[in-house]
Amino acid sequence: MTNIKITIQYDGTDFFGWQIQPNLRTVQGEIYKAVQKIYSKKSTIYGCGRTDAGVHALGQVANFRVEKMLVPIERVTRALNSALPKDIRIIKSEVVDDSFNARASATFREYIYVVQNSDISVPFYERYSWFYRKNIINEKLINEYAKYLVGEHNFTSFCSTEDENDSKFRYIERVRAIRKKDTIYFIIRGNAFLHNMVRIIVGTLVEGQRKNMPVNFIEEILKKEDRTLAFVTAPAHGLYFRRAFFK
Amino acid sequence: MTNIKITIQYDGTDFFGWQIQPNLRTVQGEIYKAVQKIYSKKSTIYGCGRTDAGVHALGQVANFRVEKMLVPIERVTRALNSALPKDIRIIKSEVVDDSFNARASATFREYIYVVQNSDISVPFYERYSWFYRKNIINEKLINEYAKYLVGEHNFTSFCSTEDENDSKFRYIERVRAIRKKDTIYFIIRGNAFLHNMVRIIVGTLVEGQRKNMPVNFIEEILKKEDRTLAFVTAPAHGLYFRRAFFK
Repeated sequence: MTNIKITIQYDGTDFFGWQIQPNLRTVQGEIYKAVQKIYSKKSTIYGCGRTDAGVHALGQVANFRVEKMLVPIERVTRALNSALPKDIRIIKSEVVDDSFNARASATFREYIYVVQNSDISVPFYERYSWFYRKNIINEKLINEYAKYLVGEHNFTSFCSTEDENDSKFRYIERVRAIRKKDTIYFIIRGNAFLHNMVRIIVGTLVEGQRKNMPVNFIEEILKKEDRTLAFVTAPAHGLYFRRAFFK
Repeated sequence: MTNIKITIQYDGTDFFGWQIQPNLRTVQGEIYKAVQKIYSKKSTIYGCGRTDAGVHALGQVANFRVEKMLVPIERVTRALNSALPKDIRIIKSEVVDDSFNARASATFREYIYVVQNSDISVPFYERYSWFYRKNIINEKLINEYAKYLVGEHNFTSFCSTEDENDSKFRYIERVRAIRKKDTIYFIIRGNAFLHNMVRIIVGTLVEGQRKNMPVNFIEEILKKEDRTLAFVTAPAHGLYFRRAFFK
């Protein structure tokens, strides 16, 4: 058996998210079909981040095993791309050690969230960012708030009530808002994320500065372990799975 | 009567082009409805460039006349945007002299055409550029070819056979290809353009360098006045109406 690691970009707009579901167009489902077409065998696709409907990826990572390397590894990227729809592109394919698993081997996952903070929205960014006109976002204040997210915390207040993970403890290594003209990029890196966690963090930071919340308001919300205390879930179409780090 | 000039951005993907047509979603049709909604009167929308289905705009220009300025000019942009779908945005509104007509008063029109010249396409650019993998585009050679397009010429060879203009003479002021990493931007400015003219120019320049045509091949094609001698019509989704210049 050969274990193949792939790095994937996708425009999440027209997918019902990453995870394979019967009769729905999903990223994992499309890759599963492409792998089956090339290798004439069914093979489980293990993904690093289970992105929701509408969420994009710049560098999603997955792996799958094949019995026979019908295509040399240098040609796997092109072979898969020719079998995939254009809103999914494999950007890299590598043979990895059999112990590698895109989900279990990832030590950190990094997301980017894009906010368009201008008076008039740009039509071309509509599918790819959150248009936020309500005030001129104070990214310095956001970076003050964000310090209280870093470290290991119980993130019950920052996940969907539908999250099914037993433990709500997660470790966040970095949260940073960077402005380039009218666009704010949030970079969020952590060991793993609960359901809707990145989107609730971004929504709460952005709404927090608009409401002029005190610098430590995040600390208070974390402590209460209550989703209703954090603010809006930022829309899916501003979110990108950027990259993963492995052991 | 007040004559209002508007500058417009749109993502052309989901429109059957600029020009109003019964039962089809068009940019002019959507603006017509928005103006009617705000002023409660029908008003003709005069556009500068009649973009085809799928073609985008960064700075399309139009004008319309209203009997009563129900909304002060400072608020027209916002009022129209609130009545328009999100893939069309008015970015500027001005009161202009009654003699102004977005079509007749334009002295020059400028288009940008975007080509993605990389090994693997980027899903996010799929709707917004022409993905061209066939060779590494030689933009220097293209700029040599392009010199033969500048000036006044009969562009019969560079327009759709469906073009209905009586005269095929047009004046091109500037054609230039600029590379930024894996993207080639074509900037094309002329007094006016025939049907598909920009797209046939781009397609012919790009295919010309791939076929390693002689430097003056454009001159030969122009001379023959025969569409079949020029090359492919580049796809609509790489084209943007960038701006217009007025008397």
